[in-house]
Amino acid sequence: MPNPTAAFLVIGDEILSGRTREANVQVLARALTGIGVDLAEVRVVRDDRAAIVDALDALRHRYDVVVTSGGIGPTHDDITADSVAAAFGADIGVRDDARALLEDLARRRGIEVTDGLLRMARIPEGATLILNAVSAAPGFTIGNVHVMAGVPAIFEAMVEEVLPLLPRGTPTVSRSVVVGRGEAYFAAVLAAIDAEFPDVAIGSYPFRRGDRFAVEVVVRGGDSSRVDTVVDRVVTAMGEAVEEVR
Amino acid sequence: MPNPTAAFLVIGDEILSGRTREANVQVLARALTGIGVDLAEVRVVRDDRAAIVDALDALRHRYDVVVTSGGIGPTHDDITADSVAAAFGADIGVRDDARALLEDLARRRGIEVTDGLLRMARIPEGATLILNAVSAAPGFTIGNVHVMAGVPAIFEAMVEEVLPLLPRGTPTVSRSVVVGRGEAYFAAVLAAIDAEFPDVAIGSYPFRRGDRFAVEVVVRGGDSSRVDTVVDRVVTAMGEAVEEVR
Repeated sequence: MPNPTAAFLVIGDEILSGRTREANVQVLARALTGIGVDLAEVRVVRDDRAAIVDALDALRHRYDVVVTSGGIGPTHDDITADSVAAAFGADIGVRDDARALLEDLARRRGIEVTDGLLRMARIPEGATLILNAVSAAPGFTIGNVHVMAGVPAIFEAMVEEVLPLLPRGTPTVSRSVVVGRGEAYFAAVLAAIDAEFPDVAIGSYPFRRGDRFAVEVVVRGGDSSRVDTVVDRVVTAMGEAVEEVR
Repeated sequence: MPNPTAAFLVIGDEILSGRTREANVQVLARALTGIGVDLAEVRVVRDDRAAIVDALDALRHRYDVVVTSGGIGPTHDDITADSVAAAFGADIGVRDDARALLEDLARRRGIEVTDGLLRMARIPEGATLILNAVSAAPGFTIGNVHVMAGVPAIFEAMVEEVLPLLPRGTPTVSRSVVVGRGEAYFAAVLAAIDAEFPDVAIGSYPFRRGDRFAVEVVVRGGDSSRVDTVVDRVVTAMGEAVEEVR
């Protein structure tokens, strides 16, 4: 059976303007890879309701799991919860369970319960809260969509919470061979090995080293003995050019 | 007149598996922001022909400019050029101008002209080459789509080449105010200022500092005097909580 698939929708003008470097894709990708869920697509869209709804509608029907990040804070530019509710045709308002979390935070910190604070308790009807250890403001799950904060420390904590609830597949085993020759030299032999092992994926990734390029050949698959076999074949084919096997 | 819009299509299993952290979005976002082109969407898709063609067809009709990265090397997993040709219904083969570049490279380096090397000379009919100072293998432009390498040093060099050829808009001016209070405290006043200045965008971005969060309020717009006015309004509204104005 093929692995479950996932998409990640990053919501944030700050990524698209270049102000902020996106930091969550790799965290999510590694977490999903670890449980055998294949992250198949990432989209980054603006803090714009139509853009968010369009992307959500495209992704949630195409993939088994959708994770979003960003736009669930208390300010006017935080429009994710309302946009997700719109995509699902769900009512949204301040919900008692989320309000209790934020009132509790206010009590502990000795701060005022403002309308802004309660904006973070706006949760679509039918959604389940995603609690986390870092922030009192919750994310939420509705259908196959998991709505999380964009701040990396909170995002990571929310991924930890949701991970046990996701469908699981066969985790991918990954090994690699570092080669000190240009890709063009071994492209043909690599293509032949790739064609012979359709259940194993071979990727070839050049990286700069001084004024030349070296290459990391990455071998990935669900069956570790097949991956090992392909790694051996690559090592044999590359001969003296092999610098490291990981 | 509104600014031209752009989308960025990142092609690469290595980003989606978590092996590699995406490094080019911010470079492209900043370059486009500098010439007044609004980066409106980013997508990351697999090294899969159907996924690439689908994304290209969605993006090239919706945005003025599309930039792609990745998948133009010599190995079997480099399928971007063929996928782009398929999306445009263009023929593709080894083209003489690109072949000459790669043969020249081979001569200078004293290396063999392999089929792998020549695979990088496969360019769709009607495309213009994107030369660059770092690598002999060219990118190419077809229609409004600019196809570039994924290796950051080469990507950056190709962006430099293409930038002067793109449509231009009004560059966005960006200033920010660092505030030492939680967002919930000032959400209402910020929303009021935002509503009063529809031509200026106000973003509020919390970041972690010790066990609390501080906030960077970012003010962006095409008219620097309007941006300055809004920054002044934010500073006045925040009072003593203002820590820094940039």
